[in-house]
Amino acid sequence: MKRSSFIQHSLLGLAGVASCSKSVEHNDNQSNALIEPIYRWKCITTWPPNFPVLGEGANLLAKWLKELSGGRIALKVFGGGELVPALSVFDEVMNGTVEMGVGVPYYWTGKHPAIPFFATIPFGMNAQQMNAWLYCGGGLELWKEVYAKFGIIPFPAGNTGVQMGGWFNKEILSVEDLKGLKMRIPGFGGKVLAKLGGTPVLSSGSEIYTNLETGVIDATEWIGPYHDYKMGFHKIAKYYYSPGWHEPGPNLEVMMNATTFNALPADIKAIVETACYRLNLWTLSEFEAKNMDYLNKILTESKAELKQFPKEVLNRLREATDETMEELVSDNALAKKVHDSYRSFQQKMSGWSELTEKLYHNDIS
Amino acid sequence: MKRSSFIQHSLLGLAGVASCSKSVEHNDNQSNALIEPIYRWKCITTWPPNFPVLGEGANLLAKWLKELSGGRIALKVFGGGELVPALSVFDEVMNGTVEMGVGVPYYWTGKHPAIPFFATIPFGMNAQQMNAWLYCGGGLELWKEVYAKFGIIPFPAGNTGVQMGGWFNKEILSVEDLKGLKMRIPGFGGKVLAKLGGTPVLSSGSEIYTNLETGVIDATEWIGPYHDYKMGFHKIAKYYYSPGWHEPGPNLEVMMNATTFNALPADIKAIVETACYRLNLWTLSEFEAKNMDYLNKILTESKAELKQFPKEVLNRLREATDETMEELVSDNALAKKVHDSYRSFQQKMSGWSELTEKLYHNDIS
Repeated sequence: MKRSSFIQHSLLGLAGVASCSKSVEHNDNQSNALIEPIYRWKCITTWPPNFPVLGEGANLLAKWLKELSGGRIALKVFGGGELVPALSVFDEVMNGTVEMGVGVPYYWTGKHPAIPFFATIPFGMNAQQMNAWLYCGGGLELWKEVYAKFGIIPFPAGNTGVQMGGWFNKEILSVEDLKGLKMRIPGFGGKVLAKLGGTPVLSSGSEIYTNLETGVIDATEWIGPYHDYKMGFHKIAKYYYSPGWHEPGPNLEVMMNATTFNALPADIKAIVETACYRLNLWTLSEFEAKNMDYLNKILTESKAELKQFPKEVLNRLREATDETMEELVSDNALAKKVHDSYRSFQQKMSGWSELTEKLYHNDIS
Repeated sequence: MKRSSFIQHSLLGLAGVASCSKSVEHNDNQSNALIEPIYRWKCITTWPPNFPVLGEGANLLAKWLKELSGGRIALKVFGGGELVPALSVFDEVMNGTVEMGVGVPYYWTGKHPAIPFFATIPFGMNAQQMNAWLYCGGGLELWKEVYAKFGIIPFPAGNTGVQMGGWFNKEILSVEDLKGLKMRIPGFGGKVLAKLGGTPVLSSGSEIYTNLETGVIDATEWIGPYHDYKMGFHKIAKYYYSPGWHEPGPNLEVMMNATTFNALPADIKAIVETACYRLNLWTLSEFEAKNMDYLNKILTESKAELKQFPKEVLNRLREATDETMEELVSDNALAKKVHDSYRSFQQKMSGWSELTEKLYHNDIS
């Protein structure tokens, strides 16, 4: 960068402050244009370019980082597969081949059994509770401890809210109906389904529609009405189930390479951290604002029927979740520590919600 | 400020960038100390100095603004009454005698009938829904439109979550029990109570305890267990009621004088805006994380009993709220516009919550 333009920028807007350049004038509109970025970072994401809410959020993050830093940070956002495969984001950030990555922690469960707790677990906490745990209940400190093993610094950076339970071509009236059910449901949720006799099937995003249409699978989960509508599942599935027991409030993440982050000046560190708070709040707000509109479109434009999982089915899924959890954390002391913190905080939130959020939804809303 | 120290700061951490001073070295720890603030702002708040969560939040805002701006912003926070009376915050920000204020919009209902919708209304939206409306549903634009009439720019900056219904020395078994009830409940909630025959009584924070103890009032609302415990109400009241029908999710505010804000450079504007997102999320998270611990202390240390308002009572309070609302907005076109936006968004959120948050609290949590 040119020395003069940098110094000019540094002094913009500071009327009365002596300056290296006599010609500096206060001009807000030009300030970002005058400076060349100092931090040119690549940000790779696990979703397609400009993916609704999630990809848009990464683009907004780039915009905010530029604004907050007065143009010093230039973040170039890449969709999954554009620069590297979507599921290599964690490794690339760890190795420092890119500075920043965006994803969902549970994608990296294979790296460490404690990781899913920083995204979501079946019958786990919702968005409000997750944020309380992460920011004010010790969760983020634990997350940093786990990711430090990989040279990565994590930031909470969004939440989908309670997801939908998925699209089914077979009605679920009892636990018996889960037996033999071929469902696209990855990760922890898939393991729980398998415990009750279901068959979790791996399908990439692009294959799900055809697999559901041709009967390769009987059911699939995805996200919520906004994203599900765009996938077109309502055109080929009979039932749209709630609630999303398997993903009650996935926390999304921004990851930075620790060596890169630790070398930053204090203001740039604070800018990254604070922009992620903003992204966190914006993402959940955008999901909430959009989902009902698209649910209405789904119900208007298709014959898909809304259904709820029977309580008995949910109770059995919860029992199977507890067994699966036990297997996940029993062999690893750090995973056990994270589990215990998560569960103890969840129990506290559940008690508090009995007097507040639960009554709100039942008696006030 | 000294010219050399400012330029030194501006260049800190930028290895390889030519500098006016040959002696510049990268030292993050010193960077904030080296620069003198350019923006020395007073921030007056409506709560006592260092008040749990709310006053602490204002102190955190000062810390974050300093960090984010590399020391350019120095915010001096004053508790209510320290510089000016708590309830003159709006006027002082409007008049530009201070740059920033922190409060709750409903304090300023006398200024414009649209204002309570930007805080909370009885049977209104909860925190998650309020954020969705404000950030992604057009609410913040409307809020800016209303406050623009007073030369103030508002930022959402926190939420208490669903409050408790208050402390009672008389059991509420039916609507009849509200008749003649002397309750400290200000604002909209008080008007609703009055419609059902109750007597809202004005008491300042410092008078409530004595008034409740001596029977001047039969009941009082406050916030939630964390703050209520510190007020000591559990020592003198028989019943602790939920839910807080009158305040289901008050949004807190940071206000800036519009002339001051509009003259700021783009990066400082973005820093203020983004720090308020962070404060918003932190505040709710801190309330959620603390409340249950203090509820447990209340239940352990006193004989206070938890009670819930009967559904019939809540339904009558809801009807009275609708009537009161009608009176509030019927004479003012802008208030009507804000009301319609709020209500239409609330209806949408209520439908969506039926499939997600409500089922979460009933069947998953």
